[in-house]
Amino acid sequence: MHRSLALLGCLTLAACACPERAPLCPSTEVPTPHPTATSGPPLAAGLGDTDEGMWLLNEFPTERLERLHGFAPTQAWLDHVRDSSIRLAGGCSGSLVSSHGLVMTNHHCAEKCIQQLSTKQKDLTEAGFYAASAADELRCPDMEVNQLTGIEDVTDRMKAALAGASEQEFATRRKAAVASLEQACTTSDAVRCDVVDLYRGGKYHLYKYRRFQDVRLVFAPEVAIAFFGGDPDNFMFPRFDLDVSFLRIYDGGAPLASSRHFGWSAAGAAEGELTFVAGHPGSTERSLTVSQLANRRDVRLPERLLWWSEERGLLTEWSQRGEDQRRLARSLLFKRENAIKAYKGRLAALHDSAFFARKVDEERALRARVAADPALAASVGGAWDAIESAQTARRRLHRHYELVEEGEGLESTLFSIARALVRGPEELGKPNAERLHEFGDANLPALKQSLFSSAPVSAELESLTLGASLVHLREVLGPDDALVKKLLGADEPRELARRLVAGTKLADPKVRQALWDGGKAALDASKDPFIELARRIDGEARAYRRRFEQEVDGVETRNGELVAKARFLAFGTAQYPDATFTLRLSYGVVRGWSDEGRDVAPFTTLGGAFERATGKEPFALPQRWLDARSKLALDTPFDFVTTNDIIGGNSGSPVFNAKSEIVGLVFDGNIHSLGGAFGFDDQKNRAVAVHSRALVEALAKIYGAARLVEELGK
Amino acid sequence: MHRSLALLGCLTLAACACPERAPLCPSTEVPTPHPTATSGPPLAAGLGDTDEGMWLLNEFPTERLERLHGFAPTQAWLDHVRDSSIRLAGGCSGSLVSSHGLVMTNHHCAEKCIQQLSTKQKDLTEAGFYAASAADELRCPDMEVNQLTGIEDVTDRMKAALAGASEQEFATRRKAAVASLEQACTTSDAVRCDVVDLYRGGKYHLYKYRRFQDVRLVFAPEVAIAFFGGDPDNFMFPRFDLDVSFLRIYDGGAPLASSRHFGWSAAGAAEGELTFVAGHPGSTERSLTVSQLANRRDVRLPERLLWWSEERGLLTEWSQRGEDQRRLARSLLFKRENAIKAYKGRLAALHDSAFFARKVDEERALRARVAADPALAASVGGAWDAIESAQTARRRLHRHYELVEEGEGLESTLFSIARALVRGPEELGKPNAERLHEFGDANLPALKQSLFSSAPVSAELESLTLGASLVHLREVLGPDDALVKKLLGADEPRELARRLVAGTKLADPKVRQALWDGGKAALDASKDPFIELARRIDGEARAYRRRFEQEVDGVETRNGELVAKARFLAFGTAQYPDATFTLRLSYGVVRGWSDEGRDVAPFTTLGGAFERATGKEPFALPQRWLDARSKLALDTPFDFVTTNDIIGGNSGSPVFNAKSEIVGLVFDGNIHSLGGAFGFDDQKNRAVAVHSRALVEALAKIYGAARLVEELGK
Repeated sequence: MHRSLALLGCLTLAACACPERAPLCPSTEVPTPHPTATSGPPLAAGLGDTDEGMWLLNEFPTERLERLHGFAPTQAWLDHVRDSSIRLAGGCSGSLVSSHGLVMTNHHCAEKCIQQLSTKQKDLTEAGFYAASAADELRCPDMEVNQLTGIEDVTDRMKAALAGASEQEFATRRKAAVASLEQACTTSDAVRCDVVDLYRGGKYHLYKYRRFQDVRLVFAPEVAIAFFGGDPDNFMFPRFDLDVSFLRIYDGGAPLASSRHFGWSAAGAAEGELTFVAGHPGSTERSLTVSQLANRRDVRLPERLLWWSEERGLLTEWSQRGEDQRRLARSLLFKRENAIKAYKGRLAALHDSAFFARKVDEERALRARVAADPALAASVGGAWDAIESAQTARRRLHRHYELVEEGEGLESTLFSIARALVRGPEELGKPNAERLHEFGDANLPALKQSLFSSAPVSAELESLTLGASLVHLREVLGPDDALVKKLLGADEPRELARRLVAGTKLADPKVRQALWDGGKAALDASKDPFIELARRIDGEARAYRRRFEQEVDGVETRNGELVAKARFLAFGTAQYPDATFTLRLSYGVVRGWSDEGRDVAPFTTLGGAFERATGKEPFALPQRWLDARSKLALDTPFDFVTTNDIIGGNSGSPVFNAKSEIVGLVFDGNIHSLGGAFGFDDQKNRAVAVHSRALVEALAKIYGAARLVEELGK
Repeated sequence: MHRSLALLGCLTLAACACPERAPLCPSTEVPTPHPTATSGPPLAAGLGDTDEGMWLLNEFPTERLERLHGFAPTQAWLDHVRDSSIRLAGGCSGSLVSSHGLVMTNHHCAEKCIQQLSTKQKDLTEAGFYAASAADELRCPDMEVNQLTGIEDVTDRMKAALAGASEQEFATRRKAAVASLEQACTTSDAVRCDVVDLYRGGKYHLYKYRRFQDVRLVFAPEVAIAFFGGDPDNFMFPRFDLDVSFLRIYDGGAPLASSRHFGWSAAGAAEGELTFVAGHPGSTERSLTVSQLANRRDVRLPERLLWWSEERGLLTEWSQRGEDQRRLARSLLFKRENAIKAYKGRLAALHDSAFFARKVDEERALRARVAADPALAASVGGAWDAIESAQTARRRLHRHYELVEEGEGLESTLFSIARALVRGPEELGKPNAERLHEFGDANLPALKQSLFSSAPVSAELESLTLGASLVHLREVLGPDDALVKKLLGADEPRELARRLVAGTKLADPKVRQALWDGGKAALDASKDPFIELARRIDGEARAYRRRFEQEVDGVETRNGELVAKARFLAFGTAQYPDATFTLRLSYGVVRGWSDEGRDVAPFTTLGGAFERATGKEPFALPQRWLDARSKLALDTPFDFVTTNDIIGGNSGSPVFNAKSEIVGLVFDGNIHSLGGAFGFDDQKNRAVAVHSRALVEALAKIYGAARLVEELGK
């Protein structure tokens, strides 16, 4: 669904918009209209003369940048950046780096594809991959990338559609208005349109993209160097990671002609240099109200963390069974570990009592300002209390909703497939505006790509994760819950999962296609156990979703608009909205930081990786690196940090200079950046990137990737 | 160590004082002097006319009980209760129920012993056990039980020893004073003496016990009925559990002659009846300051929960490998799941903003009272701020301390053994008062019982848990931490764990005995890899412990005494101290409760178990039960609830009537009781017990345990 994006921490998380392996997890598709993905300006107090800000390209603070850093980008410069930037629909960013559709992103952003293309015989994640010729490039089974072509302000039309809506009607009318705008914009399957809610309903923009689903793998290093240091070093610095992959967009069976693309800097990033990052930060929550933050702190973050930690344990131990399990579980395990670390950072920020007190004070000040203006108080004064009430409703409803209806709940690709198949005939029979969002005309191409993906489904892993999530569901809702009884009957959850997986035919895309094409009659006749399961609980699942959307989402959004209004009146509009997995531009400089008296230098070198290596995972360098050592310029900068304001979803973003030449590749943030979900601290928050010179040095001297180096113009 | 008791939630946790399998986990031995196991009276506001209170037997509120329930126990009655009550040193309670040393406790309190006595061929946990003759009773490898023989007030002597101690000296002088008092009292290995810190240093009592280490298993049902409903039903009600076991204390090779013991009620508990629970509640934190509670809420509880959840996942998945693994992991997995649920309940209580606000208000009121009295303000006014500063020190030190020095850290029986062996010569060479507490003369019998226990050690499980805890340690402290480097070198943690376990001979108790007897020379010469590891980190581990004891424990205790003083002055002494794993008596009545409008009846019946059974774990009844169904009086009360104030450590406590006849057996609390760590709510908190009639009905008709029924006098 559209909801998961905001729920995920994923600073380096590949499928950050979609926390599940489930190919249908519709969260990949429509991050837009969810209120938690919406935004408001930070309070004026928060901005200062820092590099804070994930700026809209059509509302870029040119004067502010000139004042702070002496550079004023032109509209042409901004357009060039926009056209050269790429969004990976699964939750990452990328950049066009040649005129033939070559896209640079992170290894971990392509990891799902790399794993899907791997086999028992050939594990590309372990071994790496390089297509020496165009013919060797391998198509990713279900990757989608988007290229932004235009932004239209549709605020007035949305406001008109919502005018006078009651609390009851609000969510429904809003969904219908979004669907209608998106449908009108979507002229073909090659176009993707998203209505984006900015400043928490303060503004609505319609983003129009070219949609590409033929994306091929060109190059990936070994995971051992892409993720050198593994989980222990994740979100840390100094780092020594070559977290890169190259993909190519195909259009009509041929490489995309991309006349606009980033250049490549020979020198790469230098200390103190002005740097830009263009990318798709997934979600920040810098403008949430205090009651919403308290819910994050006391309910949502702890509950997620506990379940993910348990799953991490399960997957870790399962991975120890053998090479096959290790390969199959790797992607999900990485996601969990990454998300755990990211969420721990967020929780720590909310547990920082000084930070939280500041949020409380800021809200109190804003409310006092509203209260002092009788007209304003009458129109928006009740918003905070209404949002607080919605937190009570959230506590009551969120477990059923998340465990049964959201991607977070039943962790099973096959169940997600079954549910999409079961819902298809009913949804497609409705007018577009009334459908579940993922079945809207604008979103069907993405849904179908997932549904008919040729990516293999591991029966063993499915049994494991579905069984575990059924046990979890029973634990959270209790064995006497009506929905739990309907799901489990008298079954033991793990036994049930094994039986479902053993009995289904849905692993075969042809079977799915036949059921989809057969419509309601085919579905009703199906005795597939997953179809039966999805059918059995569909009524309840939909009911919980409806209630959650009305009683929680709807109330938060409606009143969030009022809070946004108060903020606009108080602080003006020279601000940036919370992140929404749409294109943003941030500026910063290459600069280290100081940590409890210890200065952290901004650069590492290739030589440093050899010093840190122990030969044991996750500190073992690939054999190719050991073999190439004597050929390498060991003083080449490897990774570096900048003050750019980024967050999960920015993975794979280019770092470029004022000449829009690539000087690096964002792949992480430092540990302090994790609290960036709620606020930016320019003293400590840092983006972590691979240096452009390390990329070329490794491609040329370690991987012999001559074709690629040449294409980069080096 | 003495610390873990307070750290564990364990309402139904067998080894609640000792969260580890480690037989040496010294926490089983000396729960006393830890400041977090200390106590203060709840604020007057909290008590009211409810059944709240875990009362000292030598300060029992006879008049209050008479006023509330019309019964005034005599001193003889109280003495009889004291003599008939038993403490299981591992963290449970029990009762003498015959004149031949027969002890009734929970199944889960004997589960470790039951597992230790099981083999691949005969799993007593699954199958149950009944000794049809005295000769069939099986000795538990390392169980200790204690019978309280006297309590002496040593407050004056402790205060004299601590008079004028600086912050620096405080922890050391206090430890020495405790050791000295305990040593003087301990006239033989058959005597155990613990100085107990009550009311957070407000009072010190010396508890003197008979110590028994020859304890034999007489009866245990199948785990399927002892823990029917498993983790999903844990802490829930209605329940259908026969959570009982019978043990026998042997003294000089023969059953203990126990002239004093509880009688047995033919009718058992009735609705509205006055009930007593005598037992050993492990730890409550009802009198912590707000800064201490905030540390629990924001740091300690979340960190523990996350790690335990991860471990739970590991153990769950490992258990799926086969029957053997399932048997080996069961005990630890149960402990984790139980503790996770208990800690979640505690965390929920602290996240209840109304509850926390009440704590804040109470503290503010007390501090205002202190501030209003200049003399009092001068002597105790700074205590709260000092305790708050200690929380900062705690945050800085707790991870190293807990992960390396405490039982919570390196989860390995073999490592615990190695550490005790390595430390033995050095510690025993010091004067008693200067030793680490677990090496004090008063504690050596317990240490040695663990050290030379014949209980088997599973190499496979050791590798799993040690490997996982090394990974965890590296994650928490970071790969660049000096201690982590010293522990791991260039090794991969799981590989290291496997190598250590494969290379050690410490699984053999004879090898341990030889090393212990050989003293320093034998230890220094040992090349055993576990000995080498323990030796390598011993200096750092001791240093972290020393710093933690001085900078955190010492400061909290010293200032806690001042807070206690303020409380005594404000509220008087007609209160009860926080739980300290010492004998307490609580009173209550058999009564259901109301939950969101739903009335929960106080009783279930045997017939209800057959209705709830699905045939699948954890809702599968044992075959013996299915076979016996037609013989049973299905309307026999099975489990029931009372308003008695209990907490972890009370597992196995008898429920008895005013005639001191057994009417039930405590085995759990309801979900609301979990917040009981911080405060008692008589509307909702309930103890959960097995009914005495169900016990007899099952013993007689299902298990044919004629010898046992006869001994109970039924």
